[in-house]
Amino acid sequence: MIRTYDDYRVQVEHALIPMLSSLGDIPDMLMKAMSYSLEAGGKRLRPVMLLAACEMAGGQDEIALPFACALEMIHTYSLIHDDLPAMDNDDLRRGKPTNHKVFGENIAILAGDGLLNAAAELMTISAVRIGDLRGIRAMEIIMRHAGVTGMIAGQTEDVLSGGKKPNEALVTYIHTRKTADLLQAAVEAGLALAGAPESDIMAGRAYALHLGLAFQMTDDLLDVTGDAAVMGKNTHTDENKMTWVALKGIEGTQRDARREVLLAEAALDRLTWDTSFFRDIAQKTLQRKH
Amino acid sequence: MIRTYDDYRVQVEHALIPMLSSLGDIPDMLMKAMSYSLEAGGKRLRPVMLLAACEMAGGQDEIALPFACALEMIHTYSLIHDDLPAMDNDDLRRGKPTNHKVFGENIAILAGDGLLNAAAELMTISAVRIGDLRGIRAMEIIMRHAGVTGMIAGQTEDVLSGGKKPNEALVTYIHTRKTADLLQAAVEAGLALAGAPESDIMAGRAYALHLGLAFQMTDDLLDVTGDAAVMGKNTHTDENKMTWVALKGIEGTQRDARREVLLAEAALDRLTWDTSFFRDIAQKTLQRKH
Repeated sequence: MIRTYDDYRVQVEHALIPMLSSLGDIPDMLMKAMSYSLEAGGKRLRPVMLLAACEMAGGQDEIALPFACALEMIHTYSLIHDDLPAMDNDDLRRGKPTNHKVFGENIAILAGDGLLNAAAELMTISAVRIGDLRGIRAMEIIMRHAGVTGMIAGQTEDVLSGGKKPNEALVTYIHTRKTADLLQAAVEAGLALAGAPESDIMAGRAYALHLGLAFQMTDDLLDVTGDAAVMGKNTHTDENKMTWVALKGIEGTQRDARREVLLAEAALDRLTWDTSFFRDIAQKTLQRKH
Repeated sequence: MIRTYDDYRVQVEHALIPMLSSLGDIPDMLMKAMSYSLEAGGKRLRPVMLLAACEMAGGQDEIALPFACALEMIHTYSLIHDDLPAMDNDDLRRGKPTNHKVFGENIAILAGDGLLNAAAELMTISAVRIGDLRGIRAMEIIMRHAGVTGMIAGQTEDVLSGGKKPNEALVTYIHTRKTADLLQAAVEAGLALAGAPESDIMAGRAYALHLGLAFQMTDDLLDVTGDAAVMGKNTHTDENKMTWVALKGIEGTQRDARREVLLAEAALDRLTWDTSFFRDIAQKTLQRKH
């Protein structure tokens, strides 16, 4: 049976809250705040890719699922903290009030901390159960990409870039860390959990890097063209934002995104498994509507 | 050679920044913000106890040191987030401006997230190096005590207790989670890293629970008597604060703290090693001046 994107997505969505609850007796309000953001939806791209990578390489679902959920918890905590008044100060996320708008800033900070800690706790428990080094290897991959040399580094440079003029090196640094790192975590950890050799993990890593850059470029394009459609503005862009469109314009960004997708697909050529699921994700990046 | 409290403390203080830097290329501002709070001093009680517990049970220093540093990083992140305007809104910590006063709220949030993630990353790398299950077992202990059923649960109930009248169950819940949990993490993880059996780890856990409660009681006493001395007030206490003194008065709290120290020492009686280091810490809790 070949599983679809939605099969994986539904599997993750059914598991997120039970995995969190399995940790023990969590105060009601904290559980509510963490669940609110975990259940707010989204594409679940990271956990889906982790599950699919593990299955592609012949690994088992039961082993991968806690790590997929942990990765989604990490992604979710980063959104909660990102939305805080001292950060992006967003009132809405996916059409719903942001966590701090519903639960207050103090609980939102703790819900973010809680999700990050819960992710690490869940992976540790799973690693003990697996018994060999695959779990701890996957965890090392995920924590590194999420951490002070990965996603948090990207967030920091993004925060500090306010008012600076964008340049290619800085925008690439931020996009790589803020977007590509957690996608790399997904593919690499999925492969590691299947016991794949290091050379295959490196190919998966290259795929996810280029996919992440393409993804961020189409994100920037959607911001511009989306706004234009809704607001009736032309597609003039803010030259002081850290976006690829600000650097390369719309056509240049479309061209670069196509090139990143080609590079992502080329990385998959080095793998011997059926990589169609990941080729499909790469192609769909170029046709994103949201 | 018998090592003193200060020997352990100095060992930890020399290792904290190199351990953090070993993770790779961290943005300057993020590294500065994390280092600022890591270097702000304090008693280093948690990492000292972890190192001493490991050594008491015959374990090796090189194995315990990264976990000791990780535990101090977790303690430090919790202080940074605790001090934020949306939380306790503190301008000073140990006589120095709080992290967000120096680096801004956005960087302080990221520095806290970064320290928590770095702690997990460091322990994961160390667990891979150890090769057997001791590292992952110690990590599971630390993440559980720090997490949504431990320290973060305590923070949450503390935040939500504002305006409520204190009662013994609630104050005990908060003190256990906010203070005792990380002390338990220290002793249990130190013993686990030495390969101690589960029954000894449980004795260490009981010791640290009672020590933590005694510690929080003397903290509450110092708040009252300290304030009274400095401000020239009498020792009347705020009845709506979640303190043991608000529940039991000064003499009642002194009596209860002595009882908790007795219980802590009794827990040590179940261990066959030389427990004098930990008896000393328990006794000194009753003579705290700060």
